[in-house]
Amino acid sequence: RINGDRLWDMLMEMAKIGPGIAGGNNRQTLTDADAQGRDLFKAWCDEAGLTMGVDKMGTMFATRPGADPEALPVFIGSHLDTQPTGGKYDGVLGVLAGLEVVRTMNDLGIETKHPITVVNWTNEEGARFAPAMLASGVFAGVHDLDYAYARKDPEGKTFGDELQRIGWLGEEEVGARKMHAYFEYHIEQGPILEAEEKQIGVVTHCQGLWWLEFTLTGKEAHTGSTPMTLRVNAGLALGRILEMVQAVAMAEQPGAVGGVGQVFFSPNSRNVLPGKVVFTVDIRTPSQEKLDRMRARIEAQAAEICAALGVGCSVEAVGHFDPVTFDPVLVGRVREAAERLGYSHMNLISGAGHDACWASRVAPSTMVMCPCVDGLSHNEAEEISREWAAAGADVLFHAVVETAEI
Amino acid sequence: RINGDRLWDMLMEMAKIGPGIAGGNNRQTLTDADAQGRDLFKAWCDEAGLTMGVDKMGTMFATRPGADPEALPVFIGSHLDTQPTGGKYDGVLGVLAGLEVVRTMNDLGIETKHPITVVNWTNEEGARFAPAMLASGVFAGVHDLDYAYARKDPEGKTFGDELQRIGWLGEEEVGARKMHAYFEYHIEQGPILEAEEKQIGVVTHCQGLWWLEFTLTGKEAHTGSTPMTLRVNAGLALGRILEMVQAVAMAEQPGAVGGVGQVFFSPNSRNVLPGKVVFTVDIRTPSQEKLDRMRARIEAQAAEICAALGVGCSVEAVGHFDPVTFDPVLVGRVREAAERLGYSHMNLISGAGHDACWASRVAPSTMVMCPCVDGLSHNEAEEISREWAAAGADVLFHAVVETAEI
Ligand SMILES: NC(=O)NCCC(=O)O
Ligand SMILES: NC(=O)NCCC(=O)O
Repeated sequence: RINGDRLWDMLMEMAKIGPGIAGGNNRQTLTDADAQGRDLFKAWCDEAGLTMGVDKMGTMFATRPGADPEALPVFIGSHLDTQPTGGKYDGVLGVLAGLEVVRTMNDLGIETKHPITVVNWTNEEGARFAPAMLASGVFAGVHDLDYAYARKDPEGKTFGDELQRIGWLGEEEVGARKMHAYFEYHIEQGPILEAEEKQIGVVTHCQGLWWLEFTLTGKEAHTGSTPMTLRVNAGLALGRILEMVQAVAMAEQPGAVGGVGQVFFSPNSRNVLPGKVVFTVDIRTPSQEKLDRMRARIEAQAAEICAALGVGCSVEAVGHFDPVTFDPVLVGRVREAAERLGYSHMNLISGAGHDACWASRVAPSTMVMCPCVDGLSHNEAEEISREWAAAGADVLFHAVVETAEI
Repeated sequence: RINGDRLWDMLMEMAKIGPGIAGGNNRQTLTDADAQGRDLFKAWCDEAGLTMGVDKMGTMFATRPGADPEALPVFIGSHLDTQPTGGKYDGVLGVLAGLEVVRTMNDLGIETKHPITVVNWTNEEGARFAPAMLASGVFAGVHDLDYAYARKDPEGKTFGDELQRIGWLGEEEVGARKMHAYFEYHIEQGPILEAEEKQIGVVTHCQGLWWLEFTLTGKEAHTGSTPMTLRVNAGLALGRILEMVQAVAMAEQPGAVGGVGQVFFSPNSRNVLPGKVVFTVDIRTPSQEKLDRMRARIEAQAAEICAALGVGCSVEAVGHFDPVTFDPVLVGRVREAAERLGYSHMNLISGAGHDACWASRVAPSTMVMCPCVDGLSHNEAEEISREWAAAGADVLFHAVVETAEI
């Protein structure tokens, strides 16, 4: 078994970097706080005797050698970046549990055929730079490096410039490393495990996603002196689209979600009808058919809503992945490990996207999940227990060691 | 007649300060650009031999003496501040036409019994600090000075600190000056004069207004892993309220407007359902009964919409004035001046709020309006012609001189 206290101490230590305003964290990707978090992680990896490599996306690869010089490494990855008002565990648990697995192997003197590489992927959250899972996407060949470097945050700063600025632009070609298998341990971020009183989620699939960024063009005009009949009201169009997205998602129940997290009004003045409204629709479902249908419906109905109001409507997909099926052999190993260790478990479909989704394109991949209180995540109040954290790390440890072959 | 070219040259000179991004201006109140605009206006007032006074709200009073030392001054006022993406004429025309009236009186050697005071009111727009017409409101005794100083911009800076910072915090008690009458010349900001092919709007009334700032409290949660049934979706509540505000305003047609210009999502991340949505509803109508009814309906229906979604809903009135009826004698003088000068004219109800609305609480007040292209205002593309500008200034000149008594 891994050392649950040591894992918890690392989590609490990391949570001191980039503190939030309500007990959580604001350690958004490529900020100074992110750089500090990386430094701390690197120091711990050095202590554990791991060799650090950094690629041109800033992704950190910390490797424990294997016995067979030819054998590809088993990866354990997740991310240290957070939402602007994020929790202490989302992503962080996966990276630090990976490190804890390696520390336990050191303690027990376990030697494996395959090396073990603990990975901190850059910009998993996609909060500062869309899309999410950007570095693992480049790694898997889904995005170009140039595309990634050109991503802009809301202030107009680019990913490439910010990566250079914080000093974590590495030399390695992205995707040059090959992997034997990929594991990711994450909090569920949903309510199912807690409701079902299970300690371990055996993740068999991940929902597919579209992020549709709409730009509505209205006529900037005075809210007081512009008659109702002369308005080209992009704000009203937004209102109708918010309701429509809800209806489209409800029509696909169960097993689909849709909502809007980000809205920008421009010029955003109380007495000016907006000339521009930009917002992003987030839709997800494990069914490819539903995903395609929801996207088509939302785009068509938004266009109709806008046309009826004379509002201009353009849409750009700023994030996407198809539904993922994880590797049945690795999934089986996670389930057997939970069984062997005596942890209650159930199959899960991941509601959130993870770097594992992209990793699964280039290597057999799977995930382990632990419950989180009230299913709450992307909220500073995100919470888990020390025992939950440790149980999932135990399962990870067993499944990884088995895959890495003693 | 006034000198239309000189007036136009002043307008174009002032428009160079705080240029916008599309031909208009961003000279928001208490910014460095506002300070520059004030400096230029002061220099012109000095040249015209006027005496400058500044009150504790930063309002500028430039006075041409009258023949009778006991007689109260006739005020000609408006504002030099703009929206973030504002036009070159909204407010500016009224202040600079006031100055042009005085320059013409100087040229013609006209002596009046009453002094003439040209006024630049601070923070008319209310874009940076709500409410609008803040300084004239304090002047008229509607707001306390402390209330005004405590107003915050979206960055949290206070009105009081910013007034001090730009160096325009004056010594005069606000409202200490008494006036004989108040005139304000403004672009219509609506489409009626142009559609009716009239040169002059004789402003008889001004619509009443409420600015209702709503704060909706949802549950910040992951857009992907939070099932539809577990969402406390403040964004969806916003959508329904946007539609409802439109319906409430449409039910009061003709003669009422309602809309939303400002929306803030928090944390405003694509994959986080908003924990907080703050937005301001702007409703206006010349009818006191309709104004009260619209406010009551909007507050009641918003509360219902939010309750149905489990979303918290609180509302604060951040701006308000009742419908205004301007002084019939002054209104008559404006109409007769237009008639005498041979300008086509019609009665108008002001759709926008103006400092004249507050001035009317403490002295007989009225307004003159000129058309603007497509009724467009609060838009950098706001446009008027040199001839339109001059015609209104002529009418202002005649009505003011008559009121100030030769
Ligand atoms: N796990 C997680 O929250 N990832 C961020 C990407 C997403 O929105 O699913
Ligand atoms: N005239 C003008 O645009 N004033 C700003 C206050 C308002 O919203 O009416």
